This record gives sequence, structure tokens and C-alpha cells, in this order.
Amino acid sequence: MAQTEPDTEELLELSSDTRSILERHDLRPLWEVEDDMGTTRQDPEADIWKWEDIQSAIDGIERDVPIADLPPGFQRRVAVPINAPNAISNSIYVGIQTVSPGETAPSHRHSANALRFTIDGSEDMKTVVAGEEFPMENNDLITTPQWEWHDHVNDSDETAAWLDVLDLPFVLDSLNARQVFENHELERQPVTKTQGYWDSQYGRGRPADEKSDGSIPGPFEGNREATPPYRFGWDEMLESLRQRAENDDPDRHDGYSLAYVNPATGKEPLFPTMSFRAQLLNEGPTDAHFHNATEVYFVIEGEGATHVGDEALEWGQWDVFVVPPNETHHHEPDDEAVLLGMTDRPVFEAFNLYAEAEPSS
Amino acid sequence: MAQTEPDTEELLELSSDTRSILERHDLRPLWEVEDDMGTTRQDPEADIWKWEDIQSAIDGIERDVPIADLPPGFQRRVAVPINAPNAISNSIYVGIQTVSPGETAPSHRHSANALRFTIDGSEDMKTVVAGEEFPMENNDLITTPQWEWHDHVNDSDETAAWLDVLDLPFVLDSLNARQVFENHELERQPVTKTQGYWDSQYGRGRPADEKSDGSIPGPFEGNREATPPYRFGWDEMLESLRQRAENDDPDRHDGYSLAYVNPATGKEPLFPTMSFRAQLLNEGPTDAHFHNATEVYFVIEGEGATHVGDEALEWGQWDVFVVPPNETHHHEPDDEAVLLGMTDRPVFEAFNLYAEAEPSS
Amino acid sequence: MAQTEPDTEELLELSSDTRSILERHDLRPLWEVEDDMGTTRQDPEADIWKWEDIQSAIDGIERDVPIADLPPGFQRRVAVPINAPNAISNSIYVGIQTVSPGETAPSHRHSANALRFTIDGSEDMKTVVAGEEFPMENNDLITTPQWEWHDHVNDSDETAAWLDVLDLPFVLDSLNARQVFENHELERQPVTKTQGYWDSQYGRGRPADEKSDGSIPGPFEGNREATPPYRFGWDEMLESLRQRAENDDPDRHDGYSLAYVNPATGKEPLFPTMSFRAQLLNEGPTDAHFHNATEVYFVIEGEGATHVGDEALEWGQWDVFVVPPNETHHHEPDDEAVLLGMTDRPVFEAFNLYAEAEPSS
Amino acid sequence: MAQTEPDTEELLELSSDTRSILERHDLRPLWEVEDDMGTTRQDPEADIWKWEDIQSAIDGIERDVPIADLPPGFQRRVAVPINAPNAISNSIYVGIQTVSPGETAPSHRHSANALRFTIDGSEDMKTVVAGEEFPMENNDLITTPQWEWHDHVNDSDETAAWLDVLDLPFVLDSLNARQVFENHELERQPVTKTQGYWDSQYGRGRPADEKSDGSIPGPFEGNREATPPYRFGWDEMLESLRQRAENDDPDRHDGYSLAYVNPATGKEPLFPTMSFRAQLLNEGPTDAHFHNATEVYFVIEGEGATHVGDEALEWGQWDVFVVPPNETHHHEPDDEAVLLGMTDRPVFEAFNLYAEAEPSS
Ligand SMILES: [Fe+2]
Ligand SMILES: [Fe+2]
Ligand SMILES: [Fe+2]
Ligand SMILES: [Fe+2]
Ligand SMILES: [Fe+2]
Ligand SMILES: [Fe+2]
Ligand SMILES: [Fe+2]
Ligand SMILES: [Fe+2]
Repeated sequence: MAQTEPDTEELLELSSDTRSILERHDLRPLWEVEDDMGTTRQDPEADIWKWEDIQSAIDGIERDVPIADLPPGFQRRVAVPINAPNAISNSIYVGIQTVSPGETAPSHRHSANALRFTIDGSEDMKTVVAGEEFPMENNDLITTPQWEWHDHVNDSDETAAWLDVLDLPFVLDSLNARQVFENHELERQPVTKTQGYWDSQYGRGRPADEKSDGSIPGPFEGNREATPPYRFGWDEMLESLRQRAENDDPDRHDGYSLAYVNPATGKEPLFPTMSFRAQLLNEGPTDAHFHNATEVYFVIEGEGATHVGDEALEWGQWDVFVVPPNETHHHEPDDEAVLLGMTDRPVFEAFNLYAEAEPSS
Repeated sequence: MAQTEPDTEELLELSSDTRSILERHDLRPLWEVEDDMGTTRQDPEADIWKWEDIQSAIDGIERDVPIADLPPGFQRRVAVPINAPNAISNSIYVGIQTVSPGETAPSHRHSANALRFTIDGSEDMKTVVAGEEFPMENNDLITTPQWEWHDHVNDSDETAAWLDVLDLPFVLDSLNARQVFENHELERQPVTKTQGYWDSQYGRGRPADEKSDGSIPGPFEGNREATPPYRFGWDEMLESLRQRAENDDPDRHDGYSLAYVNPATGKEPLFPTMSFRAQLLNEGPTDAHFHNATEVYFVIEGEGATHVGDEALEWGQWDVFVVPPNETHHHEPDDEAVLLGMTDRPVFEAFNLYAEAEPSS
Repeated sequence: MAQTEPDTEELLELSSDTRSILERHDLRPLWEVEDDMGTTRQDPEADIWKWEDIQSAIDGIERDVPIADLPPGFQRRVAVPINAPNAISNSIYVGIQTVSPGETAPSHRHSANALRFTIDGSEDMKTVVAGEEFPMENNDLITTPQWEWHDHVNDSDETAAWLDVLDLPFVLDSLNARQVFENHELERQPVTKTQGYWDSQYGRGRPADEKSDGSIPGPFEGNREATPPYRFGWDEMLESLRQRAENDDPDRHDGYSLAYVNPATGKEPLFPTMSFRAQLLNEGPTDAHFHNATEVYFVIEGEGATHVGDEALEWGQWDVFVVPPNETHHHEPDDEAVLLGMTDRPVFEAFNLYAEAEPSS
Repeated sequence: MAQTEPDTEELLELSSDTRSILERHDLRPLWEVEDDMGTTRQDPEADIWKWEDIQSAIDGIERDVPIADLPPGFQRRVAVPINAPNAISNSIYVGIQTVSPGETAPSHRHSANALRFTIDGSEDMKTVVAGEEFPMENNDLITTPQWEWHDHVNDSDETAAWLDVLDLPFVLDSLNARQVFENHELERQPVTKTQGYWDSQYGRGRPADEKSDGSIPGPFEGNREATPPYRFGWDEMLESLRQRAENDDPDRHDGYSLAYVNPATGKEPLFPTMSFRAQLLNEGPTDAHFHNATEVYFVIEGEGATHVGDEALEWGQWDVFVVPPNETHHHEPDDEAVLLGMTDRPVFEAFNLYAEAEPSS
């Protein structure tokens, strides 16, 4: 409660007797509690991670700890940008992962939602989810939703790279929930569906008269429609961005901006905890605004700067940067640029607490 | 990710060169991050606050800092049970407040949701919300929802006591949101509605053809139907409990249990962040279960014990106790007892993360 | 398709050969079909049924066919206003029923939704629905929803009278659906609930954590939340009307108007097919409007006139009148009046076909 | 109310005096009304229209009334299967329309929902809806939803043929609603969007943060999400059918069955009044069932028979047939067949009145 209080400190002095009663019973007077609320955690700072730095960190890790020396099931190279206790933000985790030819990230499932956004992939680099092999071509986004088995298999002859994005900091550090985690008995789960199956379940035609029972996978309950396993091919996203650019006006703050929808509902957010946008910036600087949601960005292509308060985050392809809550910001592409925007806005909307405004000039 | 990992500590040693690259760029390898996640905050312990101790703490505060000596607008006596950084839990705040005859808790509004549960009240102890005076008779529950003006006026000749319950710890310490707060220009907001008005808007007949615009008060956005100002009279709640006890079977874990509904929807939860139940225990001990939501209880009447793990919290009228997340618990009333149950379960349900189970015997 | 077509009748003459092909195969050219569409049924006319006429008709029926002479299970006196093939309108059926002391209207259930609005009742005149006895006091409205057992028992020593309102004309004559109907094996269903039980299930507190399975009673499927058995006591409706009149502005077309809500949702309509309003007219004539929904009115108290096109329907207590679709109308009470308004508007809203406007002056 | 009544005709004789009171006041005793309800309209019979007969009827119409002789704006050849007063059923209208090279069906809009299913089309046969040209290739389904401008332009050098499907019989003859209709001031509406625009608005990415205002086009109100202009390309539908056939079990009554979804919601029905399915039959005869919804079928490819009661409707490509409500039926393809199934089931579901069962053996 950030209201201005009268200077009442002397007035509020308590006797040692009262103080002792309070302490013995784990009680505090309200005026002491008020001042401390909202101070247990810090918002992250505006910051950027350049791709070349990320790359050299991953190279260093690989040099020091060759994957081949590691026990099976533990062969991963992931560099994690840190700007909050354990992640790039208090809600969204981003890691940059590489998998070498022939490697497999072994199959498991967990309560946290995850997705992969392919930085450098190919048709033979596959994420297997819920029985289907999803090819990871460049800029494809693949969901590995709550409690679905998933493994990553590099059957190509090139090292693959992608973004891992999870809601772990929110789930574990903010909600204080447990992460429920389970390893598959096999390193690679059986492939039981033909390629394209999950897409066909959520296309323009859908299984008729099969009312979803609304069930949520795993030992969980809730009131959000579960996100299915799904691959968002980049071709279609880019075509939709181009259609918007040819026919519509851009959003003043986010350019031509497409939300990845939950295929089950056709509506954002993709996950109950995180929303994702493909943003095309091509008409000069956007207008400044601020909001209490955090934004994490990945640069799909192009160069430019994002101004956060007085700071300019200068970005190029594959850089990662973060816009903290409540800081005024706008984007300024050099020419045309495409960003992947990630935000915890759904968390605030779930409680009628999202707020957004433009700075008064 | 609490999975059991191979003992790979030596394997994972990094060179000082790589370590320096990582540190310079705020990067960490995944294996280090994994172990720290979920450790930034502690779950509260099972604990109980006996009414006589709360009472003596409030008396001590009043003795040391007479309200009459305080500046206007600062005249409140609130004892706050502490079991987490600033409240009884990581999500729900409970305070016990008394207001003496003639006093007013001055009018203001804020982004957090609040309610009052009357411990010791009367027809002339009034909470004024959104233009209507709500009498605070014993066991009445009165909402002061997000962004509605509210003030408390004791026009009776007895000191009144009630529970303040807010979602402040969740909003401020977990979500890291700002509390938006505003004082009314008047100490007492104008009374513009007749008594019973807000109830009449959410009764069996409702304003016809007036489609709600679904707007959320204040500078907020979200996707939950806003909770209106409302008084839940105890007589009706108790009558419904009695009807259930005469006609239905009790819930195995919570006895005859009625959720306070959001009057706008007729469904729980009362607030997007918190749910409240009136629970009648009269058929011996309940069955044990555990869940990842926290429960805070206030004893409306009766005596008994709640067993949490190996611990027995023995309670009587007006005591307050807390059942932490993931701890097995059951209730055992001496005879008939009535509890007010408060839980952050809606927070978990908003993300499909609620989990509940019975211990395997 | 009511568009103006060119006068092309000669042009559209078909050869006998073509005509014969068409007829042999049950085919028609579009231009012939177009003109006939929308002509198979007539809208009802504006009309009024005075209470004294209804009363004398019922008396005549009773005189000619004494109930006592009829076989068990067939003892009812109902006068049905006719303005469409089999009812007062193409969608809503209204009948005026009387039951003498000691009589029972035997228990049964059916697919159509029904309600009773008590004209002349008492505490001992009871409608039994789903195991509970609902007293029928004056102006009480009691639902007997789809597929719920219901019987009417007059344990008082006065003849009781009420309105029966059903969606039968819509279900049977418009939808061409079958009425599924079943007699109970007993004349009076067993009373298995205490009085007040169904109300307690849909009050301010509701059974906690018991997610409704959303099931619809009987062999039916659909996507609307089923209406529960329920008694809308008149005292509470009238109090809400008074609250509105003291605090709010009236609706320009309907005065102070309260919709009876489906208790399960807290929202109108009461049934998927029909909506009901208690309307208080006390501020002079209402403004004129027209809409494609039909309105049937019952005069709860007061006198006045409703102007439909050029016609004035002059009404007093207990009269029944109908406002046909698409006719301009307004109400003009002599002094204060209270109406029960009934409308098939939900049928149009279910298909995005409701339209309403004011006449251009 | 189809219950069996005692033979009470003599008992129920009314005096001429009472009869005269009833008639003078447009009143009837309930027992007379009951018997007549549900008899005002007939259900259609099971029937089939062979493509060659439809074709020869269209040829005859064209021979007798050359389009070139008709005034502009009136140039259409449509043969309408008749099985109910003005259409193939009481709810769904189907017409077979041909448009010659160079012709335009002029632009207009109306309250009824419509779609075209292309029988014989090409890239240059276009339906223009809401500013976009949708190519009509074989088996494409194109919506022209309520109140959207639409015209059909044959810029190819072949005659095109398609199915027109509208909810006119339901809207006009059952609901007794008015058809609101408006001609565009131009014969061809301006093309203001690039091809693919409407698809891009309802794809995997959708305009971010643009909360739909839920508005319904035209002067209409309702509670269903409006259907957008949309083209369902056959390639994608067929691919989804193949995916289902390779991975899933067929529906026992409808084979591999895909509902065309409302692109705004990702859920059936396509329109509030009508639902459409692409059905692949390839595993022998389906199981028999019956339901109170009507089914109209168009044979996309293959041969076989549909058994309705004792009757066998033998069908081949492009035939149209109808399964009336409440009649037991099953399909028996000769080999593999693909059907377009059309049903008014959503009308019954809107009122919790849909019923479906298997015959007891
Ligand atoms: Fe994972
Ligand atoms: Fe932003
Ligand atoms: Fe407050
Ligand atoms: Fe519990
Ligand atoms: Fe009945
Ligand atoms: Fe009206
Ligand atoms: Fe049309
Ligand atoms: Fe069928």
C-alpha cells in the first residue's frame, strides 16, 4: 500500500511488553506489515544478450564438458540468460539449447508448459510430442504442453539450435508450486501418429460431435482449455504477417502483431501463463507505452533498437532482450524487422490486474 | 525440476575461462539453474493463532498507541498473523481489526480485493461500499472488491471486530505487481444508494436486457467477471448449510461445505484470487487429503482439532489457523463446528495447476 | 427473400416438358420458391383476454364437465387463449388453470419447459417438483423445467388459480420436435427434500468444489445450462423492483424491468426458449419500439393500456394480452402498474436474429 | 402431448352456452388444444435427387428461359429439391446453381446464413465476400455469412456449378422471422482485400490483443459468435480425413467425420443454425441410429446406399438425399465414399432438445 502516510514513527512506538506479546504469537501491527509488502522480489532490469556471446558461452560449455563424456539422458547444452533469481525474468524462462547430430534429449514430461522456437533447424531435427514427430525447421514454434511426453531427436547431420521457453520461474518461484516431473521409460517415446496428425485435429475441420471432455492432462485441475501438441510452421505465420501488412493498420505499440493461438480455442494465449506474438516492424518507430507485464524478445530477423526508459537495447538477428514491467518502451527497427514477443500478460489478465498506458507527454 | 540426476558434479566442472564468459554475460548453464528453481520462497508452516492471544495483542497496541492521539485517517488497530514474509501465507493476508464507537476507517480504494468477515458487529457498524451502507452483523461477510471505494463507520456504542482478508501477498509479493491505491477526498464517501440496493441487483430478478459490458473497474484489464459490492448475510448461509445437512451427504474432506459465490456469476470463486467456504462439521472426523493450495481457517463456532501431518492444531471459537500446501490434513470437531475456509485454490486453477489427492494408506 | 423483383412472370414461363421434368423429380426453379417462403404461418394479432371472460369460460367448463365425474389423472380445468394455431402465439403457450380444494394434477414430466405463475394461491397450494413442495403464494413463479417430475396439490380449502406457461408451440409446431412425455407411477411423487432445499442450492453460497457435470436431464443433449426447479417468491421480486425504482432510471420501453434469471447462471433467460420479466410502470407512458420477438403480458396489478399500432389494449388486473412481432407498441399505465412480461426473444438471440428498433418519427 | 388419454370424448362434451363463451373470447379448453399440437407441419420423407435429373431440369430451365433474355440482376439458374413446403427440409434449403462463363450473380446481403459447396468450379470462378475474392475450386466450401455482401463472378470459360445451402426454411417458415435483404449499389462489390486475407485473420496466428467486440453484423443481436467469411479448401479437409483414417477409429454412425468449424471459435457448428461434416466411409456399413435432427447429404465421391427405415436410397456422385428426423438409418458405401453431411442439429442443441439413440435390437 504505497500511500503517503503521516510521519508517525514516534507515535507508533510500542512498549516492550506489547512487542513481546506480538513476537511470541507471530503477530505484527498492520503499519509494519504495510511497508514491507511488495519488496520481497526485484523486477528484472532491461537487458540484452547478443547472439555471439550466447554462442561463445555454449561453445565454452561444450569444450569443457563434452557431451560424449556424459551419461545417457544428461546430454544437453543450454545457456540460460539470467536477470532474475534463476531466469531472464520472474515469470518466463528462456534457454538457448544446441543438440549435435545423432543426439537425443530423452523423453520426459512435467507440469510446466514449454515450447521450442527453432533458431537453426532442419526437417530431420525433430521434437517428438504425444506420439508425433514434429520437424523443426527454421522459426517453427513447437509446443510441448503440460504433462505431454516430449523428446528431441537430431537425425540430421548439423548441430541444431533453438530457444526453450518455459513458465518455470512463475510456477516454481512465484506460485511456489511443485514441478511434477517424470522420465519416460524409453529414451525415445514410440512414434504412434503420422506426421500432420495433431495439426489435422485442430484444423478447419475437426472431429465431429466429439465433445471434448475438457480434461486436463496429468494430475491437475483447472479452468483453462489445455493447449495441444502443435507445430506452428513459420511459412504460415509469415504469410499472415504479410497479409496484415498489405491490408491492415499496424498496432501502434507492437507493429503488425500476430498472437500464436491455442489451437483448441483459436484464441490467445497459447498457454495459460504465457502469450507469444510474431511482430513485423516496418513503419518506423512504434509509439511508447508501458505495462505491468514483462516482455521477452527474440530477434527473428532484422536490426534495430528498443528503447527502455533512457536505455537503448541495440539488437540484431538472434539476440534476446527483456523489457521489465512498468518501464516505458518503444521499438525502432533500422529497416524491416521481425520479432518473437513473449509475455506473462495472461497471468495478470487471469486476475483482472493487467494495466497498460502511454506516458503523458 | 526435481528429478534425480546422476552424480555428475565433477563432470560438470567448467573452466575459469568459460565461467568468466558466462558471468560476464549473465548466462548460466542449465544444470545450475535447475537446482535453484523453486527455492526462493518458503511455504508457511502449519500454525494457529488463539483468539485470546490476538485479543491481548490488540489491547497492547491500543494501550501503547491510543487511537485518539493519532492523526485523522490513521486510526486503526490491526493485528496481523505472520507465517510468511508479511502475512499468514504467501497468498492470503488476514488481519484482525477493531474499531471503537464513533471511529471511521477512512474511504479509499485499491487494486487488491478485500473482504470483511464480522467477528463482533451490529446493525450500526457499517462498511460503506460503492454508495451503500452494509450493516456488519455477526458472521456477515462483506466484499470490498477491486477499485471500489470503501470505508468503515462504527455508529454503534460497542467496539466492533472483524477479519480483514486480502490477496495482497499474492498480488505484491508473488506477482510482483504494484498496489494501486487512492484515498477518497472525503473521510466518508457519500451514501447514494438505499440499503439493499446491491443485493437487489444480483438477486433472483436482475435488470433486464442490460447486457453487462463486462468492464473491470479501474485501470485494469482481464478476463474474469468483476466481483460486485455485496453482503452475504449469515442467516441465509446458515440456513443453506442446514438444508444441505438435512438433505445431502457431506464432502468427505470438508464436511457440509458452501462456497461463497461471485454474485455476478453464481459461481465460485468469490474473487479471482481467493475462494471462501462456510463449512459445517458434524459427522465425526473428515477424511485426510492434501493439495497444493493453501488453506486459512477462521473458527466461527465450535471446538475441535485439525491434524496437519503429525501436528494437531486445537481450535476454539474465533481462532485462526493455516494449513500449508501439500500437507496431509483432516478436521476433527468435538461436536458440531462451523468454519470459514479460505483458499488460494483459484490461483492454481487459473493455470491448470491445482492438484489434490488422498494419502495412500 | 422479400426483395422487389422485376416483373418477369412472362419471361419465366416454362415449357410443359421442363415443367414435367421438374415435377417428376420434386424440383422447383428458385424464382418460384422465393415467393412462397415465409408464408406458411401467420403472426398472431394484437389481442387481449379480460379476466372476467376467462373466469366465465372456466366456470362454464366446470359446470358442463364436473371434475368429480372424470377419471383420475384427468381432472384439470384449463382455458387456453387462442391467437395462433394452438396457443396465444407461435412460440409461447399460456393457459389459465384452476384446481379445487383436495384435487391433484397428477405427476408427470416432459421435454417442454413450463412454469406456473400464481394468480390466486396459498401456502397449502403446492407444486411439487424434483422432490420438494413449493408453496404457491400470490404472484410466486415456480419452474417445472424440462424432464423434472411435477404435480400440483391443492391442500388448502380454496380453489387455486394460476397461469401455465410453456414453450410447446415453439417446440411442437415450429421446431416440429416430438414432445417426450412420461407419467409418474404415482399420482403424487414422493417428497424427498425439505422445503427450501432447491433454493439453498442456488443461493449466495453453493455446494463447494462440486463442479456441475453440465448434464441435461432426460434423453436430451444441448449447450444450455439446465434450469433448476425453483420458486421465485414475489416478496423478493417486488423488493428488487422497489430498489430499482428508488435508485435507478427506468428502461425507456419497459419501465423498471427485472428479468427472472436462470438460478444456475444468474443470467436471463430463465429457459432457453422463453424469458420473463417483472415490470413496474410508474412514470407515465413508455417510449414506442418494435422487435421481432413476440411479447405476452399478464397484468399483476394496476390498470392502463398498451398501444399496438393503432390499437389500444385496455387492461386491468389479471388480464392477458399479446404484442405480435414487428408491431410498434408502448405502455401507458393509469397510475402504477406491475406486469409479467413473457417473450420468445431468446429464440431469436440463439441465432443472432433478434432485431429491435424505434419507429422513426 | 402424445400421452395416451382415457376415452373421455363423451365426458368432455360442452354445452352450446359454454362453447359460445369460449369462441367469443378466442379461448379453448386444454384437452382440445393438446391433440392438435405438433400437427401443423409435416416432416419430410426420405428421398433422393439423382444428379442426372437435376442436370436435365437445369438444362430445361436454361432452354426455356435463356439467361441472356433476362434483365440484369436476375440471371440465375437454380433447381431446388422440394420435400417440405419450400425446400428439401423444414430447416435447410439446398439449391443447385449454375453460372455460365462471363455471368455475375449480383452483390447483395441478407439475414440468412449461406454457403456454397463447389461441384464444378475453377480458380477463376469466384465468390466475392466482404471484399475478398474466394476461388471456387472443386469441393471448396465458401461461407457467405449473415449480412456480408456477396456476389459470384464466373471469369472462367466453363459453366460452374455449386450447391447453395441456406437456413431460409428455418428462419422464414419455422421462426416466422423476416428475411432482411439488401442489394449492393454495384453489381460487383469492390475487391478491397488481397486473396488469403480472411484466412490469415483466422489462422494459427491471429491479430494480437485485439479483443473482438463480439458484435454481430447488421441490425441483429444475439449470443453466438458470428461466422466470418471463409473458404475451406478441399485439399486440407481431405488431408485431415486421411489423417483420421490412418490414426483414429471411425465414428460408428458417421464414419471418419470432420465438422467444418466456425473459424472464429475453432468449434462446430459452422453457423448457429446448421452444421456441416465431411464424412469418409470406408469400413463397410455404419451402425444404425436415429435422431430428431434432419440430415441432408451431398455425395462428393463414391457410390453406395443409405438405408432409411425400410427404404434404400442408392446414391452416386453429386446426388442429393435427405434423412428425415426420427428415422433409423445407416450408410453402406460400395467401396470408399465421401459425403458432405448437413444437419440442423444446432437448432435442437440451442434448446437442449437434441436426442439421438440406436434402435433396440
Ligand atoms: Fe521438458
Ligand atoms: Fe510493450
Ligand atoms: Fe482497503
Ligand atoms: Fe483441504
Ligand atoms: Fe406438465
Ligand atoms: Fe417490447
Ligand atoms: Fe445471397
Ligand atoms: Fe445420422
